Amino acid sequence: MILASYPDGRDGAACIVAPDRATARLLGRSFAEVIEGLVTTEGDVRPFDPQACTAPLPRARQFLDGSAYVNHVELVRRARGARMPESFWTDPLMYQGCADPFLGPTAPIKGDPDWGIDLEAEVAIVTGDVPMGADVDTARAAIRWVMLLNDVSLRNLIPPELAKGFGFVQSKPPSALAPLARSVDDVPGWDGDRLQARMCIDLNGQPFGRLDAGADMTFGFPQLIAHAAKTRPLPAGTVIGSGTVSNKLDGGAGRTIVSGGAGYGCIAEQRMVETIETGAPVTPFLRSGDHVEIWMEDSDGRDLFGRISQKVETL
Amino acid sequence: MILASYPDGRDGAACIVAPDRATARLLGRSFAEVIEGLVTTEGDVRPFDPQACTAPLPRARQFLDGSAYVNHVELVRRARGARMPESFWTDPLMYQGCADPFLGPTAPIKGDPDWGIDLEAEVAIVTGDVPMGADVDTARAAIRWVMLLNDVSLRNLIPPELAKGFGFVQSKPPSALAPLARSVDDVPGWDGDRLQARMCIDLNGQPFGRLDAGADMTFGFPQLIAHAAKTRPLPAGTVIGSGTVSNKLDGGAGRTIVSGGAGYGCIAEQRMVETIETGAPVTPFLRSGDHVEIWMEDSDGRDLFGRISQKVETL
Repeated sequence: MILASYPDGRDGAACIVAPDRATARLLGRSFAEVIEGLVTTEGDVRPFDPQACTAPLPRARQFLDGSAYVNHVELVRRARGARMPESFWTDPLMYQGCADPFLGPTAPIKGDPDWGIDLEAEVAIVTGDVPMGADVDTARAAIRWVMLLNDVSLRNLIPPELAKGFGFVQSKPPSALAPLARSVDDVPGWDGDRLQARMCIDLNGQPFGRLDAGADMTFGFPQLIAHAAKTRPLPAGTVIGSGTVSNKLDGGAGRTIVSGGAGYGCIAEQRMVETIETGAPVTPFLRSGDHVEIWMEDSDGRDLFGRISQKVETL
Repeated sequence: MILASYPDGRDGAACIVAPDRATARLLGRSFAEVIEGLVTTEGDVRPFDPQACTAPLPRARQFLDGSAYVNHVELVRRARGARMPESFWTDPLMYQGCADPFLGPTAPIKGDPDWGIDLEAEVAIVTGDVPMGADVDTARAAIRWVMLLNDVSLRNLIPPELAKGFGFVQSKPPSALAPLARSVDDVPGWDGDRLQARMCIDLNGQPFGRLDAGADMTFGFPQLIAHAAKTRPLPAGTVIGSGTVSNKLDGGAGRTIVSGGAGYGCIAEQRMVETIETGAPVTPFLRSGDHVEIWMEDSDGRDLFGRISQKVETL
C-alpha cells in the first residue's frame, strides 16, 4: 500500500495511491488514524497530485532517530575534533527529535545561515505499538511503513549544544518527509531489517549522493526499535530514523560523484573528506536559495517515495 | 478551569472539575482536543472521582524538559563526578523526552532496580501554538495550563548514555502526571513565569521534600519555551518541564526534613549530600514496593493538582 496526505488541518487527509500513481483514493481520515487501526478502503478516487502533497505524517507521536551508519558518525565526529568510542559499533546511538511538525516534501528549510544548515538523507520507518522491553523479533514484526526523511541539522549549533550533555534540541529543527509512505509488504528492497535501495541526493541540480542504503547500516531497524523500547513502550505512529546514509567504500572516506565516488548523504561528510584531503573544508553549508532534492530508487531504478525538494530560506 | 481525564482510548475523556472538586462536567472529548481549541462547556455533570483519573494528558505532542533549577543540575553532576560549566547559569539545559505515554497518577513505576530508579518532582506547563523564534513575551502569552509531573529517571543508565553524546533516551522512561491540569488563570501562585507554591514529596509515607517551587528556578517557563522554539515552532499541546525542583538553602547543599531542611525533589540529590557529609551515599534508589507521593500546595496549604501516588514494580 502506498499512502500520501494532502494538507488538511494538523494531521492531513490521507489517500491510498494506486501503484501507477495516476490516481488516489481519498480516505476521509488521517494517516495517524490509519496507523492506529482505522483503515478505510472506501472513498472517492481522484487523479493523484504529488505536487499537492504534504508529509504523509504531518505530525507523529514520537521521533527517535538512530545513527545506524556508524561510518557517518565517525566522520562527523572527526570533523568536529571528537573521537568515537569503539562501543558505538555495538551500542546504537539515538536521540529523540522533533516529531511535530514533519515538514512536507517541498516546504522551505528556514534558518539562519550562521547556524550551518545541513541536510541528512535518511530512511525512516513507522511502528505499530511496541511493548516496553520488546526483543528484536518483536520489534521487526512491529514495523509497518517505510518513509524517506531529510533530517535537517544545524551544524554550528551542535558542538555547543552537545557539550551541555543533554543532546539535541535547538540543533535539530523539523525534518521533512518525501510524499509517499509505503507499507513494508509493498516497498521493493525491504528485507525486514533494512531497505536495500539507492539513496539519491542532488544539490542545486548537481548529483551530490548516490548511496547504497542497504550497505554499511550497522544496526537494522529492529535493533534500533528494541534499543528505543528498552525502558518505554512505543506508541503506534512512532517514527524511527536510520541516521544519515553513509557508505564506507572499502573502509576509506567517501569520494564525490565527480571523482567517481558515491558522494555523501550530508554536507558535513563532504567537508570532512575535504579537510582530510586539503586541510580545510571547501563546500559551504546551505545558503539562501540552495535547492536540496532527495529521492530513492529500487534496484531497477524505479522511484520509491517521490521526491523531497526543498529550497533554503534564510532568516 | 480545572481539567482531568478518565481513561478512554489513547487520549482519555476530559472533564471540567468544579472548584470544590465534588463534581465534574464530562466533555465528550479529550484534553488534547480542548488544547487544540475544541472547547465544549456542555456535558453531563457527575460526581468527580479523582481515584479513577488517568493523566490529564495521556499523550502529548511533545515533551521538552528543562533543567531550570540549576542548583539541582550542579548537585547531580557532582554526584556523578562531572563539573558544571558556568554557562549553565545563563543558557538553559533542555532535552526532548517521552511525551507518549504520560502515565496516570497511580500507574506503577516499572523498571529493573539495577537501573537506579529515581523520582524527579517537576512543575510542567502546556503551551498553545508557539511560532519558531518566539521571544520571551510571546512565549509567556502561549502558556495555557499548569501540571505536576514525576520525571522518572534511571540514574545508573544516565552516565553511559550521556557519554555517548546524544542525550537521554533509555534513561528517561515515561513520566507520570498528577490528576489535575489547571489553566493559568485559575492556579493560585502562578506569576506568569513560575509557580509560587510548595512541592511536597513523601517516600514510603515519610516526608522527603517540602520545597519552594518558586524560589531558585533560574529560568522561568517563558525562557524555557523561547529556548525550545529557537529553531522550531511548538505545536499546541507541547509540555515543558521545569526540571527537578531544588532549593539552594543559602547557597549550601540541602538538608533532609528530619534535619530541619526542606528535603529534596529526587533521591540523587539526597545521595549527593550524603556523599559530601559521610563520604558515601546512604539512601538507596527506588526498590520494589517503594511508594512515591508528590503533590503541591498553595500558600494557604490548599492542594493544587491532586496527588501522584506511584508504587515501584521491578521487572
